[in-house]
Amino acid sequence: MPSTLNLSREDMRALGYRVIDMLVEHFEELPEKPVTRKANRPTLETRLREAIPEHGSNALEVLDQLRQNVFSNIMHTDHPRFFAFVPSPSNFVSVMADALASGFNVFAGTWLEASGPTQIELVTIDWLRQACGLPDSAGGLFVSGGSMANMTALAVARHVKLGNRIEGAVVYFSDQTHSSIERGLRVLGFQDHQMRKIESDDCFRLDISALERAIEADRAAGRVPFCVVANAGTTNAGAIDPLLALADYCHQEELWLHVDGAYGAAAVFCERGQALLDGLGRVDSLSLDPHKWLFQPYEIACVLVREERWLKETFHILPEYLEDIEGKEGEVNFCDHGIQLTRGFRALKLWMSLQVFGRSGFQEAVNQGFEMAEVAETAVRELSNWEVVTPAQMGIMTFRCIPKDLSPEKVNWLNRELVEEMIADGFAMISSTVLRGQTVLRMCTINPRTTEADVRETINRLDDMSKGLLQ
Amino acid sequence: MPSTLNLSREDMRALGYRVIDMLVEHFEELPEKPVTRKANRPTLETRLREAIPEHGSNALEVLDQLRQNVFSNIMHTDHPRFFAFVPSPSNFVSVMADALASGFNVFAGTWLEASGPTQIELVTIDWLRQACGLPDSAGGLFVSGGSMANMTALAVARHVKLGNRIEGAVVYFSDQTHSSIERGLRVLGFQDHQMRKIESDDCFRLDISALERAIEADRAAGRVPFCVVANAGTTNAGAIDPLLALADYCHQEELWLHVDGAYGAAAVFCERGQALLDGLGRVDSLSLDPHKWLFQPYEIACVLVREERWLKETFHILPEYLEDIEGKEGEVNFCDHGIQLTRGFRALKLWMSLQVFGRSGFQEAVNQGFEMAEVAETAVRELSNWEVVTPAQMGIMTFRCIPKDLSPEKVNWLNRELVEEMIADGFAMISSTVLRGQTVLRMCTINPRTTEADVRETINRLDDMSKGLLQ
Repeated sequence: MPSTLNLSREDMRALGYRVIDMLVEHFEELPEKPVTRKANRPTLETRLREAIPEHGSNALEVLDQLRQNVFSNIMHTDHPRFFAFVPSPSNFVSVMADALASGFNVFAGTWLEASGPTQIELVTIDWLRQACGLPDSAGGLFVSGGSMANMTALAVARHVKLGNRIEGAVVYFSDQTHSSIERGLRVLGFQDHQMRKIESDDCFRLDISALERAIEADRAAGRVPFCVVANAGTTNAGAIDPLLALADYCHQEELWLHVDGAYGAAAVFCERGQALLDGLGRVDSLSLDPHKWLFQPYEIACVLVREERWLKETFHILPEYLEDIEGKEGEVNFCDHGIQLTRGFRALKLWMSLQVFGRSGFQEAVNQGFEMAEVAETAVRELSNWEVVTPAQMGIMTFRCIPKDLSPEKVNWLNRELVEEMIADGFAMISSTVLRGQTVLRMCTINPRTTEADVRETINRLDDMSKGLLQ
Repeated sequence: MPSTLNLSREDMRALGYRVIDMLVEHFEELPEKPVTRKANRPTLETRLREAIPEHGSNALEVLDQLRQNVFSNIMHTDHPRFFAFVPSPSNFVSVMADALASGFNVFAGTWLEASGPTQIELVTIDWLRQACGLPDSAGGLFVSGGSMANMTALAVARHVKLGNRIEGAVVYFSDQTHSSIERGLRVLGFQDHQMRKIESDDCFRLDISALERAIEADRAAGRVPFCVVANAGTTNAGAIDPLLALADYCHQEELWLHVDGAYGAAAVFCERGQALLDGLGRVDSLSLDPHKWLFQPYEIACVLVREERWLKETFHILPEYLEDIEGKEGEVNFCDHGIQLTRGFRALKLWMSLQVFGRSGFQEAVNQGFEMAEVAETAVRELSNWEVVTPAQMGIMTFRCIPKDLSPEKVNWLNRELVEEMIADGFAMISSTVLRGQTVLRMCTINPRTTEADVRETINRLDDMSKGLLQ
């Protein structure tokens, strides 16, 4: 009797309900837990290294192992006091959507295999398109994250602007641009000398006159400027490059304008974000990660392009064993629109959580991210020995401790140490970054479950820690 | 009072248990359901197109919409009578693992953020490495699917063999190679004239003497052969390229050997597969998709490379806002090993299902895939008017209906029509492909819940349909 990897109805239900109970507990108790726990490699080798188990074990016992050694050693990027990097303040409804997409094992690559899910993806992409103000002709694709969204957009740019001949071609972006742009360009075959990193202005935005000079110089040297990458919310400081001016300039110069809004484009869901992001609808391509500021669990990003057909023109292939799926009128095969052939049903979680909480729920949640960064800024300004480096913008504020009479090196050391102390403390998690050569602390406050008290107490603890470190 | 996108404990539990009940029902009732249902675009536009809902709705009502219009219109690639393309015969334990990974919202990109999950990924990659016979120095990465695994491996080959200078470089593969290789190479910047598609031999395997001739000709013309892509189980016919001879040849000629085992490498989990795949451990890189023949839901593939350090050498970047995560001794940051920075906890489902069912359970399940294709072959041989085109190998068999006195065009038409009839019937799903210009039917029988009766009845129905079509 061969094993069929099946469980009985009773065993499935027992395992399933136990998993739900673990998840409900996670969501309920998260604010009381430490933000992060980490074990070192030797400890985890001891606890988790083993040969493939020859015979099976009870699923509920396997859950205990997971609880003790695996989920106990993670940083909770969905914790209300996780202010580091970019938080991922997920929600329970989307988790259930992920469970459904996995359980029904949806192959969302072709209409034939997933007409219902494909329609949901089409509708959800269109919601994001409308929110960002792109024209009716635009379309998009859900991918794993911002790295893939940016790379997909740049591949489209390469195809549309260069016919895939990259020799001599040059791409421009500010020194505040996310590293995924550089990595994506390298994967696409661009060499370092084909990337121009333009020094940003005093507000950490792309400096258009410096951009123009660089492009003119490259043209004069016989090179082929073809693409500008702008930021809608930089990772370091939440800065927004001058989108309207860039759209005018790129249109006039026939350059592709890609906007990396992986972090910040979600701000279009509230009014102040919409105002700050004026011009977003005029880009050629755009990345937006719902697993950041639209409250989804990993992995979901969306790449949008100005003409939907560009995606298929860039990526379409038709091998003989897929002839049965070549689409009929109106049918969309998303496997033709990007790199993945097999792809899961990524849109479901965004669609389902928008259904359950409504646009108004998302609007308030996004808006609160703006407000909490302002609370943080106010709290820092109330302290002596501290300075705000970049004010609250797009839910991000940077700051540093600068006690009098400390050398610049010592100040950098102090602020780096404060991150380590905070990790050890476990109350909150913040991260550092480097701006103009200075180490600064950074808070990203986009979790709607974050309270004012969370923000203030985090900053007070940093202040106390700084005093301890200086004694 | 801002919205925090939270549900109460009671609402979470009610939604969660209802989702579990839907999934248990799906797993229990799947064999009785039609294999596929598809709606046309206008119908789904009517049912599912709407503006973003301004206000929220009850989650349980949203589940009803999903049940009626979304999950009702999918092809069940996990159905015991889904024999088309490559099935994905998932299992309930892995679905729960996906729910946990999503619910705890694991960021499996860095040790700091996910030491426990990273250790599980290290152990699970090592299980696959050992199963495939790669040396201790080898390492790998879990990615979304075979397309990304193949592209990642080719990016590593480009880095290690060419230092990323691709001008004049040439890649070789048989005409039976999966289209993801061609698409991946295009994304990486290779032009069509840098890809040599070698005609396969009578058994649809890469012809080594033709390969040698092509490489010699390219070298004589001043081009730079650097990589051979071989198949461990072609998508069309389950053919295995001559791995041992290719390993010898590529080693001697200093060429990179990548093996696309997205479909077939999983066969190492049973003894006959191990014997057929002798030589697999000598490759430079290898792709293997657990969401195919290792019974996982989408999306999980693994790319393995002969020297783990090659991954980091190819993909590592360190921007200033990630300095806090740069690894300590022994710590592994998987975000340095591939294209994705943010990545989910893909390994958990494979690890957890191997814990619950054991290697022995997987061994029997894989072995049954071989056996069911043999049952199909026997059944076809018992019929008049039918021929076996390629015998059962690696769980795949191709065949066609060839009634006497029918023109070749008419035979191709007939076999294409049989696919359409089978889709309309709903009992089973098969697909067609083209081998040497002939349309053939193809069954891929890797679902361990498939019975002999399922296979025989599917072939009998095809025979009946062919008679109907010819009347």
